[in-house]
Amino acid sequence: MTRRPASFTLLASAGEARTGILHLPHGDVPTPCFMPVGTRATVRGVTPTELHALGASMVLANTYHLWIRPGHEVIRALGGLHSFMGWEGPLLTDSGGYQVFSLREHTTVTEDGVRFRAPLDGAYRTLTPEVAVEVQEALGVDVAMAFDECLEWPAPRARAAESAARTTRWLERAQKARNAPERTALFGIVQGSMYPDLRVAHAQELSGMALDGYAVGGLSVGEERETMLELACLTATHLPPDRVRYLMGVGTPRDIVEAVLGGLDLFDCVLPTRSGRHGQAFTSVGRLNLRNACHARDPDPLDPTCACEACTGFSRAYLRHLVMSEELLGRRLLTLHNLSYYQHLTTRLRAAIADGDATCLRGLREESTRASKPA
Amino acid sequence: MTRRPASFTLLASAGEARTGILHLPHGDVPTPCFMPVGTRATVRGVTPTELHALGASMVLANTYHLWIRPGHEVIRALGGLHSFMGWEGPLLTDSGGYQVFSLREHTTVTEDGVRFRAPLDGAYRTLTPEVAVEVQEALGVDVAMAFDECLEWPAPRARAAESAARTTRWLERAQKARNAPERTALFGIVQGSMYPDLRVAHAQELSGMALDGYAVGGLSVGEERETMLELACLTATHLPPDRVRYLMGVGTPRDIVEAVLGGLDLFDCVLPTRSGRHGQAFTSVGRLNLRNACHARDPDPLDPTCACEACTGFSRAYLRHLVMSEELLGRRLLTLHNLSYYQHLTTRLRAAIADGDATCLRGLREESTRASKPA
Repeated sequence: MTRRPASFTLLASAGEARTGILHLPHGDVPTPCFMPVGTRATVRGVTPTELHALGASMVLANTYHLWIRPGHEVIRALGGLHSFMGWEGPLLTDSGGYQVFSLREHTTVTEDGVRFRAPLDGAYRTLTPEVAVEVQEALGVDVAMAFDECLEWPAPRARAAESAARTTRWLERAQKARNAPERTALFGIVQGSMYPDLRVAHAQELSGMALDGYAVGGLSVGEERETMLELACLTATHLPPDRVRYLMGVGTPRDIVEAVLGGLDLFDCVLPTRSGRHGQAFTSVGRLNLRNACHARDPDPLDPTCACEACTGFSRAYLRHLVMSEELLGRRLLTLHNLSYYQHLTTRLRAAIADGDATCLRGLREESTRASKPA
Repeated sequence: MTRRPASFTLLASAGEARTGILHLPHGDVPTPCFMPVGTRATVRGVTPTELHALGASMVLANTYHLWIRPGHEVIRALGGLHSFMGWEGPLLTDSGGYQVFSLREHTTVTEDGVRFRAPLDGAYRTLTPEVAVEVQEALGVDVAMAFDECLEWPAPRARAAESAARTTRWLERAQKARNAPERTALFGIVQGSMYPDLRVAHAQELSGMALDGYAVGGLSVGEERETMLELACLTATHLPPDRVRYLMGVGTPRDIVEAVLGGLDLFDCVLPTRSGRHGQAFTSVGRLNLRNACHARDPDPLDPTCACEACTGFSRAYLRHLVMSEELLGRRLLTLHNLSYYQHLTTRLRAAIADGDATCLRGLREESTRASKPA
């Protein structure tokens, strides 16, 4: 039997919350873990050295974007995605499902897959479960996500049930298509829209498929935040305890803390990087908008409790000046700070769960609520 | 008598070329020196730590831009420009003359100064020799440039003569306006358009004014490159040998080498930073345009002789991918490389002059010619 490319060691629990280690070919990932988003083989404006220094252990890239440009064969010829982007740690790619479905206008969905017109060159392409595996294995990532059907919200129950069933069939095809199962893990994605019973049934169905890891997908598509968290946590309780659980595309600091308390382990979101580029900073005293005039003469750091380069080297007044002047360095420093904040948050979550420290977990819940609101 | 804030120690000469040390309140600057341009109190996308690491000893910022935003009083209240931008080494600011003259449409030039309408808030302001000194002293820079009249090209001889005379009168007013002559040096700017005799006469006139340093201005305004270099080098020979000589806004690697061979010491130019943001790299094998398809699968570094982060960590193929995807990291890494190239060039110029190594100087002349042309 082939050795699994991904395994999960549970170290400690506190209620539903877990801390553990996800073992992958390019290294160990302590969980709970937040993955910075590097869509086009780069976390915008940040070098791999900096990502490592701020504590990131795993980075997410995007199958769809890299397939279109520069092409997975180019990346394979250059030694794979790790070598291409200079990141030696674990990499996960999402399957491209979300991207092709969001093109809408020029897409045709069939049982085979999704035919779409690529915005860059106008050419028609078809993304299937097999292609998604092929591309991700060519990239040589540690974790490939299975190609799933992404449903809009609201969706009728029958449509949601059919979509979950198709996602299962696509997952079976993805499993058969694997050529490097010892090198690239395959995670399945639980769908079921906002119907709790469909979510549970789909989680149970996928649990029987002995996957390397499990993701909760199809959330954060416009539903209420409470609905999203309830469904994510409900799904988590029906997934195998000896596998890692990944909540895709979530979220604010408080979403992450709540989801960790509900049993999720792995997260990715564009929020820290995108907000940083737009002059927003997540801090222990609240979310700061550097465009606000109150920061114009403020000699204090963004967050006095933060040890990142932005906080130790510069004042709010200077960072605001960079933001107002639309300077690259402003986007870069705020991105760095926000990623540092997210990493520091998950570091503290891991320690609090390991120590079974309920007071600390409550404190993180309060701080993350504060950090997610304007100061 | 007040101690001069700037002095120049000549270490060695080779023909007209000089190597020395410019002593300034915030440190010593080995010359020939290239100053990265940090217009708005930031070298676009690069941190002060990185500037220091790549060998920059002195940075240029812009009086006009900082006066308009965030305002010199804000920067003064925050401890001055060094503290504001986190750069502890020497700083020079240009006087803002070039910027207000380039606004044209909404400017009125009188003997008093230049009245103009600021693009940001639409308010009218007047930049005078006194205001330029006041702003630069408030910024607390090591070197303030005197406010000069910047002439368009072509300009009639009579207009050029009158403009140089006005620049002298403005320089005299700037000298009288100084309040911190022990902390901020004042450099005068030689004008005279493209008339060699006017240039010589103005250089001689300014030489009699015992300034802390001298700049050659009003060049690179559309004239032929050979004309520019001839006039710059002619001017240099009529400036005091015991003062530093700064050629403003120049240039390509070969311009810098030629000007150094003609006796100039100090340079600034947006070329390495701006070209980097546009996907161009200066290398020992020529100027590369990363947009060219030939780099799409190239696993080699930008420049095999370069030790910068871009060259040691990434392939041309990856850098091209970043450029094509308009990724921040691409602009950042190419900027870093180009600045490294310029610093490495001036380091080698200093060594060759100190060693009186004519072969090496000839080699640098050849390499810089190559680096300035498409590969």
